[in-house]
Amino acid sequence: MALPHATVQTPVFMPVGTQATVKAIPQHLLEELDAQIILGNTYHLYLRPGHELIRRMGGLHRFMSWPRALLTDSGGFQVFSLSELRKVSEEGVSFRSHLDGSSHFFSPEHSMEVQIALGADILMAFDECTEYPADFARARSSLDLTLRWAQRSKDHFTVHRQQRPWAGEFDGETQSLFGIVQGGMFAELRRQAAESLVEMDFPGYAIGGLSVGEPRALTREIIESTLPHLPADKPRYVMGVGYPDEIVEYAALGVDMMDCVLPTRAARHGLLFTSEGRLNIKNRRFAEDAGPLDPECRCMVCARYSRAYLRHLFVTQEVLGAVLNTVHNLAYYLDTMKAVRDAIELGTLSALLSRVRARDVVGGSGED
Amino acid sequence: MALPHATVQTPVFMPVGTQATVKAIPQHLLEELDAQIILGNTYHLYLRPGHELIRRMGGLHRFMSWPRALLTDSGGFQVFSLSELRKVSEEGVSFRSHLDGSSHFFSPEHSMEVQIALGADILMAFDECTEYPADFARARSSLDLTLRWAQRSKDHFTVHRQQRPWAGEFDGETQSLFGIVQGGMFAELRRQAAESLVEMDFPGYAIGGLSVGEPRALTREIIESTLPHLPADKPRYVMGVGYPDEIVEYAALGVDMMDCVLPTRAARHGLLFTSEGRLNIKNRRFAEDAGPLDPECRCMVCARYSRAYLRHLFVTQEVLGAVLNTVHNLAYYLDTMKAVRDAIELGTLSALLSRVRARDVVGGSGED
Repeated sequence: MALPHATVQTPVFMPVGTQATVKAIPQHLLEELDAQIILGNTYHLYLRPGHELIRRMGGLHRFMSWPRALLTDSGGFQVFSLSELRKVSEEGVSFRSHLDGSSHFFSPEHSMEVQIALGADILMAFDECTEYPADFARARSSLDLTLRWAQRSKDHFTVHRQQRPWAGEFDGETQSLFGIVQGGMFAELRRQAAESLVEMDFPGYAIGGLSVGEPRALTREIIESTLPHLPADKPRYVMGVGYPDEIVEYAALGVDMMDCVLPTRAARHGLLFTSEGRLNIKNRRFAEDAGPLDPECRCMVCARYSRAYLRHLFVTQEVLGAVLNTVHNLAYYLDTMKAVRDAIELGTLSALLSRVRARDVVGGSGED
Repeated sequence: MALPHATVQTPVFMPVGTQATVKAIPQHLLEELDAQIILGNTYHLYLRPGHELIRRMGGLHRFMSWPRALLTDSGGFQVFSLSELRKVSEEGVSFRSHLDGSSHFFSPEHSMEVQIALGADILMAFDECTEYPADFARARSSLDLTLRWAQRSKDHFTVHRQQRPWAGEFDGETQSLFGIVQGGMFAELRRQAAESLVEMDFPGYAIGGLSVGEPRALTREIIESTLPHLPADKPRYVMGVGYPDEIVEYAALGVDMMDCVLPTRAARHGLLFTSEGRLNIKNRRFAEDAGPLDPECRCMVCARYSRAYLRHLFVTQEVLGAVLNTVHNLAYYLDTMKAVRDAIELGTLSALLSRVRARDVVGGSGED
């Protein structure tokens, strides 16, 4: 996938950098971990430091000193998470800031303006993330709104895209706007959504509205039934997933891009992913464990520090604990996706999937 | 100064790593910053994870994966900070843990046992840190106790030093026990303390009981009057100082070693030391400042990030803010001390002192 700031090898896992930082990690360590593209949250950056400030500072890449690819979400998911604080209309969403209660309004046009100012390589159309559960009628009307907003997003982006802060720096390259498939847990609505978006002709498509509380079998079902309706020669992105075995499973289905806060958030809570399964580093049994977190991992944490030391840092609530745990979990996710890419070339993907499944207990434990 | 784990170039500034971590910094970055020796706090490590655990894990070097030199304090200063929770007798100090209120007892012998288990290159004799202000009679009796404890520390250490966890690894090298000069703010008592300790014959000497609230002129006066009574061919260590211009000033007086939480603690509060003076990164005027923290600094933070970004990280309370601010402040301190060593060779120390003084406002502002 060729983007203005990088050519990204797919399938790819994108670490989440909500507030212009992948929490607890300096950018040079992200580079060493081989993160190819990271995600910024439009809602958070709009509130702090503000998209106009970031535009004046030369865009998000320059502001946070990240030379590789960036993707910004539409702000929709975060705004819809503010359930008590928002109100949806045809025009857009009015909401109150979770920080100070101040009033704001996001429309498809405004989301585009903010994302153009941030200047990421990939922008997302403004969508309504349908809540779970939602009945067919509710999912249908929500989807229809999302489709009208997708068209408005595209129309606005097409006219205003030249305002991106790094215009001219990348010859012939421009920002890309992806559409988002909604439709709740109804395969038929998902199909209609995919077809409508493909008709609008986006350079890439996301499947949104998953990982919102539904059982995992349903997540897979929706992904599996929706993918065939999206062109295989364009990037297909499933938003907000998942556990290590999920990302392998969905990549095997043909998903090109995924993002999730799980590796970083779980790390800060002491939940670590390893080739021997998940472990909770605060567990007493690690108190005198001189071994590495994961004997098969080659990250800087596993190369240098013991489980006993990482447990001590967690128990004493030292900042370094958050830093090292995050480095390892991201290494685990990024290495897993690298293994997926290698397995695709070698034709050994199903063997890899069995291996990853065997080592990791399936989700739903709600650790973070 | 040749130590089991490193030859340390003096004068040296020692970052404080209270709980087996210099807060917010991975060890490999400390190495890149050229930290030669760091300090561990005996009181904290005794409570968590416990000195016996660290002994079983092969000592503090191995536990925290720090291959260079380490110094542990005696625990005295921290115990005496627990003013409401401690009781002093000839035998030692009984105190309650600040964590859970549990009862503990430290004597010179016990401090030695704990420090021998931790296995640092340099251990400190158990002392009573005289409070400020203290009248002559109080300072005298406190000092007498410290001198009796110094002898007991040395006696115990001499018999038990072979219990160091890395025994045998460093041919012919052993841990070193330093004595601590007390005596309040009375030059005469300080002189007597120095002479008594020199008679006991330690391989190095510290001046303790400073930076306890006294005016800075008095700190300097005590250091200046005490140093001549300590052998110049052995390391002379002033504990718990200071601001950048102070460490240059004391080095110019002949001090070989200093430690202070100031660069690391101030960093976490957004107070940064630069060649243009101190700055508080949360200040609004940095909101759109695209320049580096310190244009003269060559640390990884100044090479890559803007003041605007660092302000954003501070305002949003991101962990990365603490990490980057700490890296810079330590770089500033360590580079300053490196400049002192160079200036000593070149005979330009007084010019350096004027320069550092001019750029930094003198202490007492209590920012952290």
